[in-house]
Amino acid sequence: MQFTSEQRLDDDVLERKFTLGDIPGILWTPESASEPVPLILLGHPTLGLSKMYPRLVARALRSAAEGFATATIELPGSGDRPRWDALDRVRADLRRTIQAGEPVSDEIIDAVVLPLVDKAVPEWQAALDALLALPEVGGPVGYSGGVISIGVRLAVVEPRIVAAGLFAGSFVPRVMFEEARRVTIPLHVLLQWDDEGNDRQAALDLFDAFGSKEKTLLANMGGHTGVPQSAGEDAAGFFARHLR
Amino acid sequence: MQFTSEQRLDDDVLERKFTLGDIPGILWTPESASEPVPLILLGHPTLGLSKMYPRLVARALRSAAEGFATATIELPGSGDRPRWDALDRVRADLRRTIQAGEPVSDEIIDAVVLPLVDKAVPEWQAALDALLALPEVGGPVGYSGGVISIGVRLAVVEPRIVAAGLFAGSFVPRVMFEEARRVTIPLHVLLQWDDEGNDRQAALDLFDAFGSKEKTLLANMGGHTGVPQSAGEDAAGFFARHLR
Repeated sequence: MQFTSEQRLDDDVLERKFTLGDIPGILWTPESASEPVPLILLGHPTLGLSKMYPRLVARALRSAAEGFATATIELPGSGDRPRWDALDRVRADLRRTIQAGEPVSDEIIDAVVLPLVDKAVPEWQAALDALLALPEVGGPVGYSGGVISIGVRLAVVEPRIVAAGLFAGSFVPRVMFEEARRVTIPLHVLLQWDDEGNDRQAALDLFDAFGSKEKTLLANMGGHTGVPQSAGEDAAGFFARHLR
Repeated sequence: MQFTSEQRLDDDVLERKFTLGDIPGILWTPESASEPVPLILLGHPTLGLSKMYPRLVARALRSAAEGFATATIELPGSGDRPRWDALDRVRADLRRTIQAGEPVSDEIIDAVVLPLVDKAVPEWQAALDALLALPEVGGPVGYSGGVISIGVRLAVVEPRIVAAGLFAGSFVPRVMFEEARRVTIPLHVLLQWDDEGNDRQAALDLFDAFGSKEKTLLANMGGHTGVPQSAGEDAAGFFARHLR
């Protein structure tokens, strides 16, 4: 892990860009902390870190105010990382299917999501190794947002993650419902009720499938990108309860 | 409205019992307020005010800390009010049906819930008249919890109520889904996901039916009575946003 740049943000937060091999990432840490702080891994959709930056930094500043470090890495095939032609092709298929108003088959969903999960999850685990080796970052670790199937897989395979805030806003392969049953950590699941690009019933079924004894579903209006400010406050409360 | 007793609780809160005609009620007000405060009407199930008192006073103290008055009245046929034999008989039918594991018909739900709504709602409106006439109580007014159909009807017919926190924990007559479409105030709906005595799909359908542009569904585990502490904090945040 190599730091490539740093800047001081308001609220006493240090933002450092880094690379982990060829994967770019960003780490935000509260500077006033006197001991290692808990860490939240910030997930995001496949739009690239620079496009997502404004929303990510807002979440990072809020978490820093709670005393938490946050970090994120670029997803495979996104942003400045090499294109992933095979995945781009199935994504184009998916877009055409949606635009034509046709039903989205399980095969397309599997082809779009599963290779991404299989490749991204070990990268996030490697990032976790590197981040937890920093003296200023301790634990416990939470995972927040992004492609929900990545969050589910991480919650199953990564024991260092003790709580996850998930965004039910993307297609979910059938096999992930089985993985969901093996999730036992506390979950906070966000659903945009009127998100027309999302399958609401699948999101409710996935929530039902999670094996966690402690799980919360928070549904709001406002469409896919219209998550209200209050939902951010609720998620912050969830992590404050589980990472302190 | 006649005050029948008063006591000072910790947290600088004055608790006053009152009667409104033959209806008993309780009012909690933050004593340090220098001007009229917003009011939350505290709904509750049909178990009687004395049985519900511990949970009600906890909600009242929390609201007082936010600077809000809270008040509640006994439901018809509950607590120290005269028995309501006809309603008791259909409730007994409902209990027998549930204990026998038989499906609960729309007719039984209508018979158990609709007379209660029809009788209770004008009483809550009369209580609102009396409470808002007190110099220490102003507005705006919120409604919180209790029999959800009473909350829905109040949200439709009572323009002084500007926000409602509802608990999707009781049977809902079909006609209430039509009334729900006419609700336009901000809503915060609580659902216990694993509440075996509740019809989860009906609760989700009711949430979907609400006409409000701003509505939030918060689902937690823990069974009918196991609403987690964090849900109380979320509800408090909802009222803080809408009553201040």
